[in-house]
Amino acid sequence: MKKAYLDHASTTPTDPRVMEAMLPYLSQIFGNPQSLHEWGQEAKAALEEARGKVASLMGATAEEIYFTSSGTEANNFALKGMTWAQERRGKHVITSQIEHHSVLHSLRALEREGFTFTQVPVDSQGLIDPAAVEEAITEETVLISVMHANGEVGTIEPIAEIAKIAKRHGIPFHTDGVATVGTIPVDVEALGVDLMSLAGHQFYGPKGVGTLYIRRGTRILPFIDGGIQEGGRRAGTENMAGIVGLGVAAELAQGEMSPRIAHLTLLRDRLREGLSKRIDHLYLTGHPQSRLPGHVSMVIEYVEGEALLLSLNLKGVAASSGSACTSQALKASHVLEALGIDPALAQGSLLLTLGKDTTSQEVDYLLEVLPPIVERLRELSPLYKRGEP
Amino acid sequence: MKKAYLDHASTTPTDPRVMEAMLPYLSQIFGNPQSLHEWGQEAKAALEEARGKVASLMGATAEEIYFTSSGTEANNFALKGMTWAQERRGKHVITSQIEHHSVLHSLRALEREGFTFTQVPVDSQGLIDPAAVEEAITEETVLISVMHANGEVGTIEPIAEIAKIAKRHGIPFHTDGVATVGTIPVDVEALGVDLMSLAGHQFYGPKGVGTLYIRRGTRILPFIDGGIQEGGRRAGTENMAGIVGLGVAAELAQGEMSPRIAHLTLLRDRLREGLSKRIDHLYLTGHPQSRLPGHVSMVIEYVEGEALLLSLNLKGVAASSGSACTSQALKASHVLEALGIDPALAQGSLLLTLGKDTTSQEVDYLLEVLPPIVERLRELSPLYKRGEP
Repeated sequence: MKKAYLDHASTTPTDPRVMEAMLPYLSQIFGNPQSLHEWGQEAKAALEEARGKVASLMGATAEEIYFTSSGTEANNFALKGMTWAQERRGKHVITSQIEHHSVLHSLRALEREGFTFTQVPVDSQGLIDPAAVEEAITEETVLISVMHANGEVGTIEPIAEIAKIAKRHGIPFHTDGVATVGTIPVDVEALGVDLMSLAGHQFYGPKGVGTLYIRRGTRILPFIDGGIQEGGRRAGTENMAGIVGLGVAAELAQGEMSPRIAHLTLLRDRLREGLSKRIDHLYLTGHPQSRLPGHVSMVIEYVEGEALLLSLNLKGVAASSGSACTSQALKASHVLEALGIDPALAQGSLLLTLGKDTTSQEVDYLLEVLPPIVERLRELSPLYKRGEP
Repeated sequence: MKKAYLDHASTTPTDPRVMEAMLPYLSQIFGNPQSLHEWGQEAKAALEEARGKVASLMGATAEEIYFTSSGTEANNFALKGMTWAQERRGKHVITSQIEHHSVLHSLRALEREGFTFTQVPVDSQGLIDPAAVEEAITEETVLISVMHANGEVGTIEPIAEIAKIAKRHGIPFHTDGVATVGTIPVDVEALGVDLMSLAGHQFYGPKGVGTLYIRRGTRILPFIDGGIQEGGRRAGTENMAGIVGLGVAAELAQGEMSPRIAHLTLLRDRLREGLSKRIDHLYLTGHPQSRLPGHVSMVIEYVEGEALLLSLNLKGVAASSGSACTSQALKASHVLEALGIDPALAQGSLLLTLGKDTTSQEVDYLLEVLPPIVERLRELSPLYKRGEP
């Protein structure tokens, strides 16, 4: 019954070439890369090769790449490691209203230790105004963290401009690149960022592995304490198969990025246009131009997101109504709220996110099954029946 | 040239049955378990099945199992999550002198926040005296963390007795079970512990996945903040393949534990006896009876551990001279120091750790190649030449 997986923002399928590359590290090449013997050194070589591939994808050098277990851990590492390292300089952080929970909840946890943070707002298309970031800077500010693109509404933020402001004020700058690295071109030098997070499963790598890029010379404390792995900055026996898989996913993303983006953009625009044409009271969210390829987000009036998802699922379509990290919490999205979307309308949030292997047939199938679902759900809605539209 | 992998304390090979079980989660079953649709629910079912298997291995219930990325992360989670949750009650922790760096360095990081800790000593065989733990308790003590067994000297600690003391004083008790869970029988009820860490790669599961057992009703704060995964206690997209692999490794360990222990104990004792017979000035370390099966640790006088490892490697043998998490740091071991072993002698530390698939031929091969290596290295040693023995 599975017909169209349109939920690539939640996770992507692992590329068969990625899995193939991982297999030796789940069988004959099993050494601990910290061991001095041949078994260990063989693993160590693969670890460093993967590090080089991830570095290349981001325009970084290998020694600036620190492997983590997820984008979430990378964000925790960046936020906590940076603030802990600089708490004597000040205890204030600037971020935005639309960050991922791994950033916002890390900051809330830091409040326990006396840190405070300012969340700059976004406009109705989800764009952050760099001037608002600059205005939020105080004498106490030790870190600015603004995401590269938002996974719920697809808007790509003006990171290079914000990074320039941070640099002018001598404040380290972190960006959450989970939605962008491996999907659109990312160059840490061109962006001018000091720290950047990514997650392997967002671009056809395995789940359970991420990276924090840390610019050389950045003062940061470890987040996970223990052994000497990752230059003493991130302890724990390395997830060898996952890291090797991430390396190959990075290499493939770098090599195939242009055709992937062309394909995704084409399908995305076909989907956006098709939806707008076929369903009334449907409002596309996020920025129309500065947005992720393959990312279509909307709110549909007089329907409820969960009912939409379940109905789509019955038709064999995977979709989402927000971040997978909160999907089962069924709370109102702080992102849609920040965009100024009416809470009642935000209930009808729908995310359709395409992948490199999504076909136009799948898009057409969605365009065929969604309108009758919306119609049926609206017939059940007391608001719609009352003819309020 | 690889002939005998005798470094199972650093890491074990992934069992082929574990890899087999992981493959679907690196290919067709790729959903995010937090997603509401079929792809997600399929993953979710596998996640919960694995949780049940790990729970069963430890005598816990599934909802007490929290997946992490390593034993190190589990130890960080236990130490930091517990102290943060209880800092209003007090800021003192009790641990031992021979804990893993993931425990000791976590405690050092907590000193930044005003926490203090007491390290109870061990005897010359590495045993902790439960009475010493009780004596260290103050009004301020909010956590006791003592490892179940030490990976460097193999000694199994009297955890049930220490847990009783903790319980009598109303203090939560954590034990690092990385060296024991999956290797010897572990039952959290019989041990009476509140928290226990494990690492999958220590018992033929994949690297990059661990677990923290948290007794129901224990107050703990998250260590990795973010989404609602793991009941809101450990954020980050789940390492599905790794978790499924850990589940199968747990199931296999539970089913095969008795024959594995019998096999390991036999080979271990053969190796210990053979070494003592063939090499003079060789001192077995750790406890002779209360020790891990398959674990042979020693110090060899007038030789240097790293030279031993490199020479063994040239003969196709993998061994280690201490914890893999510190091996490349080449610092003196805090564990051997705590046992009162002379620092010069501790330089000649050698660990030979056997696995379920180690053969008696491999043990005999080691017994054949090690004595001439020791002899040759001693000939190069000025101390030995001077005829000091």
